[in-house]
Amino acid sequence: MNAHIITIGDEILIGQTINTNAAFIGEKLSGIQVNVRKTSTVPDDEDEILKEFKVCLNENDLVVVTGGLGPTHDDITRTCIVKFFHTELIRNDEVLDDVRNFFNKRGRKLTKINEDQALVPKNAKVIRNEMGTAPGIWIEKEDKIFVVMPGVPFEMKTMMNNYIITRLQEKIINKDSFVKRGNLLTTGIPESMLFERLGNLKELLGGAKLAFLPSQFGVKLRVTVNEKNEELATNKLSEIEQKIRSKVGRFIYSKLDESLEYTVARMLFERGLTIAVAESCTGGLISNMLTNISGSSKFYERGIISYSNASKVEILKVSEDTITQNGAVSLEVARQMAEGIKSISGTDLGLATTGIMGPTGGSSEKPLGLVYIGLCDDKVCTAKKFQFGDDRFLNKQRAAQAALDMIRRYLLGIPFDE
Amino acid sequence: MNAHIITIGDEILIGQTINTNAAFIGEKLSGIQVNVRKTSTVPDDEDEILKEFKVCLNENDLVVVTGGLGPTHDDITRTCIVKFFHTELIRNDEVLDDVRNFFNKRGRKLTKINEDQALVPKNAKVIRNEMGTAPGIWIEKEDKIFVVMPGVPFEMKTMMNNYIITRLQEKIINKDSFVKRGNLLTTGIPESMLFERLGNLKELLGGAKLAFLPSQFGVKLRVTVNEKNEELATNKLSEIEQKIRSKVGRFIYSKLDESLEYTVARMLFERGLTIAVAESCTGGLISNMLTNISGSSKFYERGIISYSNASKVEILKVSEDTITQNGAVSLEVARQMAEGIKSISGTDLGLATTGIMGPTGGSSEKPLGLVYIGLCDDKVCTAKKFQFGDDRFLNKQRAAQAALDMIRRYLLGIPFDE
Repeated sequence: MNAHIITIGDEILIGQTINTNAAFIGEKLSGIQVNVRKTSTVPDDEDEILKEFKVCLNENDLVVVTGGLGPTHDDITRTCIVKFFHTELIRNDEVLDDVRNFFNKRGRKLTKINEDQALVPKNAKVIRNEMGTAPGIWIEKEDKIFVVMPGVPFEMKTMMNNYIITRLQEKIINKDSFVKRGNLLTTGIPESMLFERLGNLKELLGGAKLAFLPSQFGVKLRVTVNEKNEELATNKLSEIEQKIRSKVGRFIYSKLDESLEYTVARMLFERGLTIAVAESCTGGLISNMLTNISGSSKFYERGIISYSNASKVEILKVSEDTITQNGAVSLEVARQMAEGIKSISGTDLGLATTGIMGPTGGSSEKPLGLVYIGLCDDKVCTAKKFQFGDDRFLNKQRAAQAALDMIRRYLLGIPFDE
Repeated sequence: MNAHIITIGDEILIGQTINTNAAFIGEKLSGIQVNVRKTSTVPDDEDEILKEFKVCLNENDLVVVTGGLGPTHDDITRTCIVKFFHTELIRNDEVLDDVRNFFNKRGRKLTKINEDQALVPKNAKVIRNEMGTAPGIWIEKEDKIFVVMPGVPFEMKTMMNNYIITRLQEKIINKDSFVKRGNLLTTGIPESMLFERLGNLKELLGGAKLAFLPSQFGVKLRVTVNEKNEELATNKLSEIEQKIRSKVGRFIYSKLDESLEYTVARMLFERGLTIAVAESCTGGLISNMLTNISGSSKFYERGIISYSNASKVEILKVSEDTITQNGAVSLEVARQMAEGIKSISGTDLGLATTGIMGPTGGSSEKPLGLVYIGLCDDKVCTAKKFQFGDDRFLNKQRAAQAALDMIRRYLLGIPFDE
C-alpha cells in the first residue's frame, strides 16, 4: 500500500510550526508495512489544496491529510473535501454530543462555531475526537482511502493510535515481501569513524540497506531488510545487528528507538540504584530529561542547579579555595560537586556538570564549549573533560548527552575513554 | 519569487527524523519576501528525486534542496544533480583544503571518503561548509536558481545565514506589493474564547488575514497584511495589533516570535531582578528553559529539584507536618517551597511547582494533572491551583508555561485569575 501524507497550513510553510505531524504519521504507517512514498505541505489555499488532493489520490492507495479542520475562519479543509468529493455537509448528532460533552466537562460555554464542528461531509465515516472538538474524516472511493485529521498534534495522535492504524491493518493484504527495520543508536563517535570501523559494508549487509543518520545526540544506524516473510526478515536483521555490534558495540546504547536518558533510566531502575544531579552549565536539562520518564521518582532523588558560586559552596560544599584556585569550570570543582550532591542526597550515584556554554565567557585557556563532568559512587569519584563547540543550545544538549553516556558506561563497565 | 523546498531522506518519510530543516528554510525565505509555495519530502531513491527536481524547477523560480550530500554510500543527491543537469563531478581544491583543515583542527585522520567530498558538479557554484565537510551547491539555469545543502541542521543553517539569504536578496527585485506578517503570542486562553473575544473579524482586519495557531504553549495569532509598500504594510499591521491588544491584551506575552521564557527573562533582566526556582513536578524544565537563554546567570541564581520529600524538608525547609497533613501536592507546600527557595538563595523572587504529572499517581481527590504553583517576593507569597490533563510530557510543559506566565503577570501587575 503506497501512501502520501499532506499537511496543510501556511504556518508550516513559513516555518513557524515544525512539521511533527508528518513524522508521527510516517512512523505509524511504516510500522504497519505501508510505504510512505512522499509527503508534502501546502498552503491554506483552496486551489493548491484541491490540486494536491487530486495528484496524491491518483498516485497512491492512501492519502492522509492533517490541518485546517478547526473552528475558525482560516480552517478551509472541510470545504475543500466537500468540493473535491462533490458532496455536502450534514450535521452528525454523535459528534454534536461529543462537542457538548467536551465543553461541559471543562465547564465552558458551547458557542455556535463549536457546534458547527458537528457538520461533516455526507457519506464520510466520522472519526470521533477524544481530545478535542473537530472530528476526523474517513472516505473510501474506488479502492482508495482518504483520511483527514485535525492538525493539533495530540488530537491527531489519539485518532491514529486508537482508530486509523487498526482500521488500515484490516485493509492491508499480506504480500510476498516483508520489510523490517532495525535501529542501532550510537553516541560518542562521529559518522565517518563509524563508517571506517564497520569495514566492508557489502559483506556486512548481504543485500540489506544501511543508513547513517547523524544528529547532535549521536549517529543512528538504520538497517532495512526485505525478505519473503517476517521470520526470515527477523533472522536476517538480527544477524546483521550482531555483526555491527562486534565492531562498534560499545558506542551502541540502544536498539529501540529510545533516548539515551530512557536507556540510562531503565538501567538504574533495574539495578535499584538512585542518583542525584548537580548541574551548573546544563542548567537543569539532565534532570528534566530524567524526570520526563514516567516513574523517575524511583531512581531520581533530587537535583541542584548550582548556577551561582554561592550555591556551589552553600549547598554542595564545594571548597571556596578550589573555586578561587581552579575556577568554577574545572576538573576539581566537577568532582567536588558530584561528591557533594551524592553526600547530601544519600544516593548511590552523584553526577555533576560545570562548563562554559557560550556564546560569551570563553578565554584562550578555557574556551567556549569546555565542560567537566563528574561522577561518584561510594568508592570512586571520576571527572572527565570534554570540548564541545560554541553554540549554547547544542552545547547544553551535548554535555547532557555526554553525562548520561558516562552513567551508561559506568553501569556497563566500559572505560570512559575508549 | 516562488519557491519549493525539497527535503530528501527515508528517515524523514518513516518519521525517524522530524523535518526541522524545512521549517528553518521556510522561515528564512519568508523573511526576505520569497513565497514558499510548497514543501515536499522524497525518499533516497534516484527516480523519485529526479522526478521531484523536474516538477519543482518547472513550477518555481527557486528550488532549495537538503539532504543526501554526506560521505557515505546512502547519500545520492550529488549523483542526482549530475544526472539532472547533464554535468560531471570535478575536484574543487578550495573544498579539499576546507575538508583537510576541518579534520586537522579536530586531530582526526582524513580518509578517502572524506576527500571525495571535494568532488562537486562542474559549473556549479560551491557554498563552503563552515561547520562540516560536505559543500553546498548553487546552480543557476534559465533565470531559475537551484540550491542544495547538507541535511545536518547546523551545517545547513550556517550556509543559509552566512551565504544563501544574502545572495538571494541580491536577486530579488522589489515589486509593487509588500507582504508583512506580525505575531501576537497568547497564553492561558483557549482558541475559541480568543475568537469570541475578538468579535467581528472583518471589521477588525479590513482586508488583512488572521490565523489562529494553537499549541500546548498557547495560541499564536498571526496577522498578514499585503500593501503597496513597506511603510503602508507596517502601519496597517500596527493598527490591527493595537485593536487586538485592546480586546485580549493581557493574554499577549510577546509580539516577537519568541518563547515565554525569553519574554520573562528579558523583563527580569531589565528590572535587575533575580530569581531562584524550586521544582518538584516540572523536574528541572523551568530552570532548563530559563538557562537556555544566554546571560541567564544575570537573573537566575539557582534551582532545586526537590523530587523527594526529604529534599523538600532538608533544603527548602518545608514543614514535615504540612506535608503529612496536606500532602506534598498542595497549595501550602507550593507556598512553603517558594518561600524556602527565595530565603536560601537571597533572590528577589522564589518560584515553586508541585503536582501530579502522571501517567500514574492520581486519585479522585488529587487527579492527574493537578499542579500548584507558588510565587514569593519580599512581601507576599501567593500560590495558585491548576488542572491540566493526563499526559506527563504535556503536563510538564503546561505547568512550566503557567509558572512563567505567573511571573509575567506578577511583573506587569496583571491579576493571576483574569
